[in-house]
Amino acid sequence: MMEKTFQNFTALQQCWENLNRRQPLIHCITNYVTVNDVANVLLACNASPIMSAEPREVEEIVALSQGLLINVGILTTETIPAMFLAGKKANALGVPVVMDPVGAGATRLRTDTTTELLEQVRFAVIRGNISEIKALAVGGSSTRGVDAALEDAVTSNNLPTVCSSARAFARRCNAVIVITGAIDLVSDAQQTIVLRNGHPMMSRITGSGCQLTALITALIASNPGQALLATATAVATMGIAGELAFTKNQQLGGGNSSYRNHLIDAICNFTPEMLAERGKITILD
Amino acid sequence: MMEKTFQNFTALQQCWENLNRRQPLIHCITNYVTVNDVANVLLACNASPIMSAEPREVEEIVALSQGLLINVGILTTETIPAMFLAGKKANALGVPVVMDPVGAGATRLRTDTTTELLEQVRFAVIRGNISEIKALAVGGSSTRGVDAALEDAVTSNNLPTVCSSARAFARRCNAVIVITGAIDLVSDAQQTIVLRNGHPMMSRITGSGCQLTALITALIASNPGQALLATATAVATMGIAGELAFTKNQQLGGGNSSYRNHLIDAICNFTPEMLAERGKITILD
Amino acid sequence: MMEKTFQNFTALQQCWENLNRRQPLIHCITNYVTVNDVANVLLACNASPIMSAEPREVEEIVALSQGLLINVGILTTETIPAMFLAGKKANALGVPVVMDPVGAGATRLRTDTTTELLEQVRFAVIRGNISEIKALAVGGSSTRGVDAALEDAVTSNNLPTVCSSARAFARRCNAVIVITGAIDLVSDAQQTIVLRNGHPMMSRITGSGCQLTALITALIASNPGQALLATATAVATMGIAGELAFTKNQQLGGGNSSYRNHLIDAICNFTPEMLAERGKITILD
Repeated sequence: MMEKTFQNFTALQQCWENLNRRQPLIHCITNYVTVNDVANVLLACNASPIMSAEPREVEEIVALSQGLLINVGILTTETIPAMFLAGKKANALGVPVVMDPVGAGATRLRTDTTTELLEQVRFAVIRGNISEIKALAVGGSSTRGVDAALEDAVTSNNLPTVCSSARAFARRCNAVIVITGAIDLVSDAQQTIVLRNGHPMMSRITGSGCQLTALITALIASNPGQALLATATAVATMGIAGELAFTKNQQLGGGNSSYRNHLIDAICNFTPEMLAERGKITILD
Repeated sequence: MMEKTFQNFTALQQCWENLNRRQPLIHCITNYVTVNDVANVLLACNASPIMSAEPREVEEIVALSQGLLINVGILTTETIPAMFLAGKKANALGVPVVMDPVGAGATRLRTDTTTELLEQVRFAVIRGNISEIKALAVGGSSTRGVDAALEDAVTSNNLPTVCSSARAFARRCNAVIVITGAIDLVSDAQQTIVLRNGHPMMSRITGSGCQLTALITALIASNPGQALLATATAVATMGIAGELAFTKNQQLGGGNSSYRNHLIDAICNFTPEMLAERGKITILD
Repeated sequence: MMEKTFQNFTALQQCWENLNRRQPLIHCITNYVTVNDVANVLLACNASPIMSAEPREVEEIVALSQGLLINVGILTTETIPAMFLAGKKANALGVPVVMDPVGAGATRLRTDTTTELLEQVRFAVIRGNISEIKALAVGGSSTRGVDAALEDAVTSNNLPTVCSSARAFARRCNAVIVITGAIDLVSDAQQTIVLRNGHPMMSRITGSGCQLTALITALIASNPGQALLATATAVATMGIAGELAFTKNQQLGGGNSSYRNHLIDAICNFTPEMLAERGKITILD
């Protein structure tokens, strides 16, 4: 594998412009911890959110929507069947489905539910931290709840190994796999895009991962047939927004709560040109 | 129908002062997407929120409260019976009930539940966007989830027609009907107050509608026998707050997340005098 | 009882430093109204939150955690059994458990659930407003929902009486009892720490109490065997943060929504030295 400079910023910019123009309706089955932020991120990027995890109506809502987000952050006896119903309906209708396997590996219920979802629903994209993706791909277990275990961090040293695993998992699921952390990876079966934007403050707020998965869903919904690039656009946008938010937060002497606002604000004020200006992106194939 | 300048700002101001003095306890059965904002808006206007959608306790909570808000944004097997129990108890005790039919028309479950609520519970006020109110009044269906369908927008051209429909629906329900959008209408069976405050940014955050319905509940609870004027006070306040928040947000270079804070802040810092100073209000009868 | 100046600021400072170093994982069973704020407060103080109220997984999550927060703000047929399962498992494993009896006294369900929790689970700390603690200790009932009834307020006059009651209740539960309001009390069976920091704006946002209980859990989890001092550290921190947030909010012309951000920001930017510099603390024994 060789790491090369990424040059196709025009394609990423086009993905963003498609999102702005199409303003997709995104059906979110998501957790109540970060649901308000998820809704506001979708509105920030000109998408439109609709939340429902009620088995009796999710199929109708999927049928209105251009994308489906399944975030397993809160699992209950009602939300689990809703995820399967909505996911299968979306597959039947050709609506792309994105999964955020929050806490996979932390409990048997989360690992089992996400594994079974993988068997029964075809996902366009799966985004998690390295511990969550490991739990799904090789059945590992996490020791740090919904955060990545320290021993799992992606570094320059293990990057080629992690890329190979991501690629193999992408091939197996026929999905784009996103592993986020200090270094972010976006991989399909053939190639891996590596992104080095972002800021450590992003892990001092709840929900930056949930927000990113929502942004991915909006971009995927607006760019059919462009899963890898649309996903990379979302990851680059969130990373750049994280940097811009940090600068603003420092100027104003804020803490993590203000940072949360600045992060969503940065997505609201994002322009596609920023991708080429600030993106730190390479490609491995 | 003739559109005339609204002149009774003293009455609106009085409604606000009654709210400040009475500080009503408002029982909210509401969705988990915007519940935190709903609580903070109620605290912003000196009301006090209590949230419960648990069938075993809602009747006791209604009995402590001066107003009941039923927002159907999230329907589950527990929250639906809670809405009926609380609504009926409120009717029995003379506690005013306000409904926000979020997503009525988008799914059968939402249309059926709101229709059945209308049959079994007497509402003081019902507030929705034009698509939601149409779904309730004439059984239409929405194609845009929880947002109004574009083809439904209230404009200067169709204003008299929409007013007639709102008035007929108000008569049928014996309730004040509020239709919000670029132009807001507040109608009882006799007359319609038309409000032209507000800002497009309000639709770039989740929950400005939910917040308004909460504010209406607080004003209704504080002004018995004044449903039309108390509701118009709430709608004018929210519209003016939306404008003030936009000015502040521009000064600070914020996006939609900061705008959300500025909106609630503007209600917290609202003074009744602003109603006359900034209200763009007419009346049709 | 004699009120004396509190002098052991070094111990409080040590408690904060232990929290910064240990960065505990805190399992939260909490309400959906303020859950996002609770998560962000835990991240602000370098702890790590994990939310789950699902009976099938809470025992596994407790086993990963260093502290368990049980906040009864929203009770459902799923969350109530989750509280008992998680609480008993935590007791078996030696993980400290903290209770926030939101609305105890307001409904029979809340009073019964919290009373039964007290019988079946050993709590390290219980924090509520005076009406909630009274409901638990002597079976009183509240007339103001989740807020303290006015007639219950702790004042200089009734302070010794309230302290005696708190101490008796602390002895009975073998727990540290925290009563918050304009004056805050932290009591074990022997002595009571009295804290006079804070600001009235804290009651104009939803969740400042929930946030404090989360902060207490993080401090307790990081300071085994130091329940009284660790709890007092959390209460002092929240009070001082409330004052700093008010100053910042005034400078920026904010309302209650901005205040909410400044409050969490102040915890994020808190330094242990502020405890001695700003703490208004006395001790009664």
